[in-house]
Amino acid sequence: MRLGKAGNNKLLKEINETSLLELIRTNKQVSKAELAQITGLSPTACGTIVANLLDKGYIREAGVGTSKGGRRPILYELTPKSYFSIGVDIDVDYMRFILMDITGQVEFRDKISCDFARDTSESIRLMEEKIVEIIKNHSIEHDRLLGVGVSVPGMIDNLTQEIIFAPNLGWERVNLEHMMAGVGDFSIYVDNEAMCSALCENWIGCCMDESDFVCINMKSGIGSSIFAAGNLYRGCCGSAGEIGHITVDQNGPRCACGNYGCLEALVSARTMVEKAQKLVRQGLITDFENIDAITVDDIFRLAGEGNESARIILVESAGYLGLAIANLINTVNPSKIVLGKELVKFSEDIMEHLKSIAVAKALKYPASRVEVVASKIGEDSSALGAAIIPLKKLFGYRL
Amino acid sequence: MRLGKAGNNKLLKEINETSLLELIRTNKQVSKAELAQITGLSPTACGTIVANLLDKGYIREAGVGTSKGGRRPILYELTPKSYFSIGVDIDVDYMRFILMDITGQVEFRDKISCDFARDTSESIRLMEEKIVEIIKNHSIEHDRLLGVGVSVPGMIDNLTQEIIFAPNLGWERVNLEHMMAGVGDFSIYVDNEAMCSALCENWIGCCMDESDFVCINMKSGIGSSIFAAGNLYRGCCGSAGEIGHITVDQNGPRCACGNYGCLEALVSARTMVEKAQKLVRQGLITDFENIDAITVDDIFRLAGEGNESARIILVESAGYLGLAIANLINTVNPSKIVLGKELVKFSEDIMEHLKSIAVAKALKYPASRVEVVASKIGEDSSALGAAIIPLKKLFGYRL
Repeated sequence: MRLGKAGNNKLLKEINETSLLELIRTNKQVSKAELAQITGLSPTACGTIVANLLDKGYIREAGVGTSKGGRRPILYELTPKSYFSIGVDIDVDYMRFILMDITGQVEFRDKISCDFARDTSESIRLMEEKIVEIIKNHSIEHDRLLGVGVSVPGMIDNLTQEIIFAPNLGWERVNLEHMMAGVGDFSIYVDNEAMCSALCENWIGCCMDESDFVCINMKSGIGSSIFAAGNLYRGCCGSAGEIGHITVDQNGPRCACGNYGCLEALVSARTMVEKAQKLVRQGLITDFENIDAITVDDIFRLAGEGNESARIILVESAGYLGLAIANLINTVNPSKIVLGKELVKFSEDIMEHLKSIAVAKALKYPASRVEVVASKIGEDSSALGAAIIPLKKLFGYRL
Repeated sequence: MRLGKAGNNKLLKEINETSLLELIRTNKQVSKAELAQITGLSPTACGTIVANLLDKGYIREAGVGTSKGGRRPILYELTPKSYFSIGVDIDVDYMRFILMDITGQVEFRDKISCDFARDTSESIRLMEEKIVEIIKNHSIEHDRLLGVGVSVPGMIDNLTQEIIFAPNLGWERVNLEHMMAGVGDFSIYVDNEAMCSALCENWIGCCMDESDFVCINMKSGIGSSIFAAGNLYRGCCGSAGEIGHITVDQNGPRCACGNYGCLEALVSARTMVEKAQKLVRQGLITDFENIDAITVDDIFRLAGEGNESARIILVESAGYLGLAIANLINTVNPSKIVLGKELVKFSEDIMEHLKSIAVAKALKYPASRVEVVASKIGEDSSALGAAIIPLKKLFGYRL
């Protein structure tokens, strides 16, 4: 016999509790009567659940509201600093850490250097140490840490949480949860870095009111994530949004993946640096002593200073990215596309160029409904998103 | 105050009724005790709902099941031919009609010629006449028709049901529901043709067990539809899946949309016919007397007979389509991609060529998890899908 969706009714008590907690979060301050009115649950049932939530410390009394005839009702709100979650963003040469409380308030942030590609186990040890230190320094009791979210630049199997492939870390089929046993007995959630950014934009960023949006990040590679109908869209095995290797120009340069003209081979921090190095060798950029020390920030800086060669690198990149965005607009029909990480460094005129290509190449109707914006969150978006995972779990969202 | 998801609790009675009806559908034959067990509802509550469903005629008794100790339980099933829905598939020069009963059984199918582009109102009148005739000929009482679904080759605003743009019909901003007032007081659901095909494959076709899949149809143009996490993914305003105008080759031929190298400009029935006409003019194909009468079927036939020029047209088309499919595999990570309508006419070796391009150009991990298949449903998939819309509504699915 197939278990239909009605099978969930058995968990109705649990669903009711997380639903009320979520309503208290989204309404900021709310009375029992209002909760009963919104949910259709009886005042008695609401009273029981509220008592339970107070008992666990998730919520607290927050004064009284306005009267609708009788006694002025007690309002409830989330208790700041009652429960916490930790987010870690792993990349090739650094880790970022976020400590967030149940209300979404950031209590602590840090960034440390590491070398994952060269010594994974040493880097993992560093991460564990840092997590233990954060817990200790903030005197967080064991049952008050909702979990640790880890953002990884790679494809994650969303059922097993196994990291299938993270080329820049040199990882293939890695179970990070097992490797992090030293951190203690906490729930660990591993997720893709672009997906973490989308969770962040949707929870505390510029997509709080969007149900269908796309986040595109550029670091060493290019990744994206798709929010569909209010949820992260993962595809059948967790790799949805991997636009770094869509073919943008069949006659383009060879990509690390073996194909030709992938988006990442045409647009990425690494590609831009390689282009700049070539221009230095050709004598077209003369502002560098050490060709190997050129970073993408140098290119942004030079372009800002009026260097035409550096500007052309950015214009070309924005053009290819605009084309890829046009294809996403047609295929995914998002209301917003958020450009994050290195992409926020595009100057206004480069962004306008990118947008004009995207709009010109996309169909008129979906192009008229989409807004392409730079993220205001910046480099921390994946670490913040990773910290949001345990919160979303608490508030009853599917991940 | 924001209305949270818990606001749905007010409709719990209605949700319980559709949930039980859906469980009876998916389990084929089921007893009240089993329904109570699956749902967690009390036997009394299940009894009331079952009595209600019997009363409305949706279900009937279907003999007795095996005993688990006490009396042998009565089994319930959907009542064949109790309720009906009609599906219409509109295209440039024909309409297809399907009459389906509550169990998904096709009771009647037909195809008639028309000329929507030349005379819309005459074609609409023809459609209305046909619908009224079907209802009359099958003696369907007014309250036994669940609704009429209409499949249209164009972009539909999924909130207003307005047809935003259907280039091949010459329609822009058309409200078909208003135009069909003559058909009588029935619920009318308008949907995109590729989305209708996906509904069909998911309800009665090769994707009944898939949650994340893509359907790609080729007729005069190319459209696709995306099923994400078990539901049709529409995007923010209904146009998701419009892959006909993604850029496949920036240096490709000019497309009707004004851009260059769109998939549709490289691969579509129309493009293939134009290529064949060019080859005839060049004397490379000599099998046609009237160059204007060449159809895509002629090309498939000639290629099947060993004509190398015709074969090259198909190989080229399959190559471009393979590239677009690779991009979809990376972006959407589906478990299945179903090729429908004209695409089912590709011979086995052309399909193999298409698949090999798709797999070679896509990332290894999502490529290893996807199956690319030709639809077994054929030309009727959109009409069937349109008929399934009112059924899905009855069984409590969101559309």
